[in-house]
Amino acid sequence: MKVYGSSRSGNCLKVKWVADALGIVFEWIETDSFSGVTRTPEFLAINPAGQVPALVLGDGWVLAQSNAIMLYLAEGSPLIPSDGYDRAKMFEWLFWEQYSHEPAIAVRIARLFYLKTPEEELDPALLKKGHAALARMEQQLQQGAYLVGRVFSLADIALVAYTRVAHRGGFDLAAYPLVRAWIARVESRLGLPAAE
Amino acid sequence: MKVYGSSRSGNCLKVKWVADALGIVFEWIETDSFSGVTRTPEFLAINPAGQVPALVLGDGWVLAQSNAIMLYLAEGSPLIPSDGYDRAKMFEWLFWEQYSHEPAIAVRIARLFYLKTPEEELDPALLKKGHAALARMEQQLQQGAYLVGRVFSLADIALVAYTRVAHRGGFDLAAYPLVRAWIARVESRLGLPAAE
Repeated sequence: MKVYGSSRSGNCLKVKWVADALGIVFEWIETDSFSGVTRTPEFLAINPAGQVPALVLGDGWVLAQSNAIMLYLAEGSPLIPSDGYDRAKMFEWLFWEQYSHEPAIAVRIARLFYLKTPEEELDPALLKKGHAALARMEQQLQQGAYLVGRVFSLADIALVAYTRVAHRGGFDLAAYPLVRAWIARVESRLGLPAAE
Repeated sequence: MKVYGSSRSGNCLKVKWVADALGIVFEWIETDSFSGVTRTPEFLAINPAGQVPALVLGDGWVLAQSNAIMLYLAEGSPLIPSDGYDRAKMFEWLFWEQYSHEPAIAVRIARLFYLKTPEEELDPALLKKGHAALARMEQQLQQGAYLVGRVFSLADIALVAYTRVAHRGGFDLAAYPLVRAWIARVESRLGLPAAE
């Protein structure tokens, strides 16, 4: 099992963390999405969508989309709640992450921290959208220690990936104490140090 | 079971189509997302994310995110492939839809067709991104009649929602013959007339 991924991408790290948590052995092929390599014919032959992460099995079968890969790796594990209601809420958070959180917070991290784009060149809507996402998480964490109540699940792993480094995108987490406590809780479960 | 949804939203229609296909009885509560009603305190008490569709069960339990609702309703049905590889690819398409297709094609439909925004006020990147998504589907449909090979699944229902009305967003499907044939095939399975 090979994982094409970038160590600078939360979407890719999600896959690594799930595999590590479940003791799944894999080969990590460092693939820098900022370098243009994911748009080369060689990479497009692996994933026609031109994105990392991409999981490749020994028989050549390929799976893309970070959350789909997590679901595949975690099938039958406690990271996917067995209760149908909890599982449905986990899916709600996974889709919400890709639609309402990542496109604001991860995009600002990429532009400001990695590409060194001046703040004034960014769409101001991204900051507002990102804070709305953080406020939504703060509200939810009033209900329990994890996003799906008391159950640590893929929802937490998906959301922590960019939330723990949101400061790199210019998001001050001071107003979100429950989010900060949750980050520390999830990092502890995954054996991760606090992000710089 | 109640579904808060807008008949003008492909994300909401997805949920209706899955319920109809599976013979699930529900009450549809027409909720126009363009009117601002989803941002009222009354609606935010139902779905704090301020989005439709939202599914509400008799006991008050609420589920948001169109693709999460489809997965909940279709649990155990043939719309979710039983084969693990096929199921994983279905998830790949569901996440891809919300990240790479809907934010371009649905957004242009909303702006041009419903909100009557002049084309020149739209971000030109949306047209390019939407065509890239359509080209990706055209490429995939060389592999089989449905997005997950020979298996009709939630991936087709999710993707057809906005693809069948992509012309309302200024997307000419002439260059995508396999996509057009697939739209007709999926509409036929869902008992839908061709969209105007």
